[in-house]
Amino acid sequence: MTATAAWGATAPDSGINALTIDRRALRDEDVAIDIAFCGVCHSDLHVARNDWGRTTYPFVPGHEIVGTVSAVGAGVTRFKVGDRVAVGTVVDSCRKCDACHDGEENYCREGTTGTYNSHDRIDGTPTYGGYSANIVVAEPYVLRLPESLDMAAAAPLLCAGITTYSPLKNWNVGPGSRVGVIGLGGLGHMGVKFAKALGAEVTMITTSPAKGEDAKKLGADHVLVSTDKEAMRAAARSFDFLLDTIPVKHDLTRYLFLLDRKGTLCIVGMIEPVEPFHSGLLLGGQKAVAGSGVGGIAQTQEMLDLCAEKGILAEIEVIPIAEINRAYERMEKADVKYRFVIDMSTL
Amino acid sequence: MTATAAWGATAPDSGINALTIDRRALRDEDVAIDIAFCGVCHSDLHVARNDWGRTTYPFVPGHEIVGTVSAVGAGVTRFKVGDRVAVGTVVDSCRKCDACHDGEENYCREGTTGTYNSHDRIDGTPTYGGYSANIVVAEPYVLRLPESLDMAAAAPLLCAGITTYSPLKNWNVGPGSRVGVIGLGGLGHMGVKFAKALGAEVTMITTSPAKGEDAKKLGADHVLVSTDKEAMRAAARSFDFLLDTIPVKHDLTRYLFLLDRKGTLCIVGMIEPVEPFHSGLLLGGQKAVAGSGVGGIAQTQEMLDLCAEKGILAEIEVIPIAEINRAYERMEKADVKYRFVIDMSTL
Repeated sequence: MTATAAWGATAPDSGINALTIDRRALRDEDVAIDIAFCGVCHSDLHVARNDWGRTTYPFVPGHEIVGTVSAVGAGVTRFKVGDRVAVGTVVDSCRKCDACHDGEENYCREGTTGTYNSHDRIDGTPTYGGYSANIVVAEPYVLRLPESLDMAAAAPLLCAGITTYSPLKNWNVGPGSRVGVIGLGGLGHMGVKFAKALGAEVTMITTSPAKGEDAKKLGADHVLVSTDKEAMRAAARSFDFLLDTIPVKHDLTRYLFLLDRKGTLCIVGMIEPVEPFHSGLLLGGQKAVAGSGVGGIAQTQEMLDLCAEKGILAEIEVIPIAEINRAYERMEKADVKYRFVIDMSTL
Repeated sequence: MTATAAWGATAPDSGINALTIDRRALRDEDVAIDIAFCGVCHSDLHVARNDWGRTTYPFVPGHEIVGTVSAVGAGVTRFKVGDRVAVGTVVDSCRKCDACHDGEENYCREGTTGTYNSHDRIDGTPTYGGYSANIVVAEPYVLRLPESLDMAAAAPLLCAGITTYSPLKNWNVGPGSRVGVIGLGGLGHMGVKFAKALGAEVTMITTSPAKGEDAKKLGADHVLVSTDKEAMRAAARSFDFLLDTIPVKHDLTRYLFLLDRKGTLCIVGMIEPVEPFHSGLLLGGQKAVAGSGVGGIAQTQEMLDLCAEKGILAEIEVIPIAEINRAYERMEKADVKYRFVIDMSTL
């Protein structure tokens, strides 16, 4: 066990403060990583405050981790000291079920071991996230970070990136697809970039014309202001896929009118009860409301490689760790373009 | 114009009674059909009572029509007098949009011309359904009824049949698919037969163990009693596709727990607001709630041909037209196995 500097919460109302955690000694398959940067995800805040009722304290957030390998276990074959690597939301799974077999460890039948607020499958110790100096992760759950990707701006790819990339791939978005991205934040801005990279015609759907202009700079072809009733009516039945990144409870009805025949609205941001909508909105054209949660290890690696090939990175604001509580406040007001990333050298 | 004997409603509370309607004189592309049998659909009842608020009276129900060609217009090439034919829920559409072009006239961008409670696109006259001696329909919307299919038992294929067949095909149900059919009525019993014919492993999901046994006689492999909490828990995450045929408002939550990774629950019976369910049920495995409404002309013909090949027919109770009001009462209590069909010789 190694005493490790970290920042985390000790109670729902404690805020995020400096503390010391134990990282396990390397097992044969483990990779030890010195963390260079860690992205700040909305989930970090929810779990820190116990919004979902399952937080164990002390809690160390952070599941958008990039860094450098500092040591490897005896059985590690794919990584060596000095390699650039990344870790996302999942650090272990059963490795035996059909989902794990299919490379969808994120949907493991026995449940995943989360990067934080979970327990190691072997020794039962708590898992602590990336707001820390280092982390120890089993090799199969460690990703290669391509050399060309800026480390800080790559961090959000590990959650915001894969969360938007996975559904776009699953629903076969490509050239000819008419994609609407609803909401422009950490997830939405990556959704615009990935939908565009996959060849789709991309519309930013937002309440704010200003955000629409921002989305165009990120690559969106069109802007649809969702409070403009006339524009919404004109856009009825004109989308094949809607990526709904709104992180809070909201009504789907106005967006379902936008779906064309066989279209799908996929929820990736909201973890809440879905408000009632009329079934006729789905029956009239074999349409669907779907959901998607992050992505598997292989697909995450595929995404990172695509990002290197196409030069895709998150738009970020780098902060020192001491500003994390202020960053949470700003994140709640959507006052960030578009993701905070902690510089771990400030720890 | 030809005065034609029919039965229909003259007001929301009139019940169904004998009346006389006009059928148009044959246009070049028209086929005149002497109706032999007409199935009784739940929608007939809803529209007769103006439950959906858009009924024009007098209203003649019936969109599960089988009969024999009695005359053809000068331009008709595929049918001749004496041919066995069928008509479903759609008698015209714009014929120009992408949906029509793709053979999904049921999702026509300009809206379909319904077999009843609609207006002819050329002369604006009301369309009247199949509770009548004959009907005149444009050739592209007339289906061939294979010789081997019993006319009476084939009638429900035109709505209940295609409504269940279309989503099973759209979501690629086939050998290896684990399909649950929710609800055993006019739609559900056809869903069991089609899912089985397509090679799936089929489970009837019902509140009633007795209905479960009935479903086994129709071909279901398994029965899941939805009020049995233990059985429902054991069946969690074990279905790829759920065909939800329940015709009234109901909560989806208990069924969404049954979906496995990338599974879809498809609503085909309920035309109501969907009650709230938690988005986490969709996010945890890229799952979807979808809807589907009847099917296109080409797919309906494909279904009829499959029925002939595999000997698939509806389970029916034939009634004389004079019993239609009593049949509606019984249909509302689900007291029919599984579809009423009117013998039009009793008109």
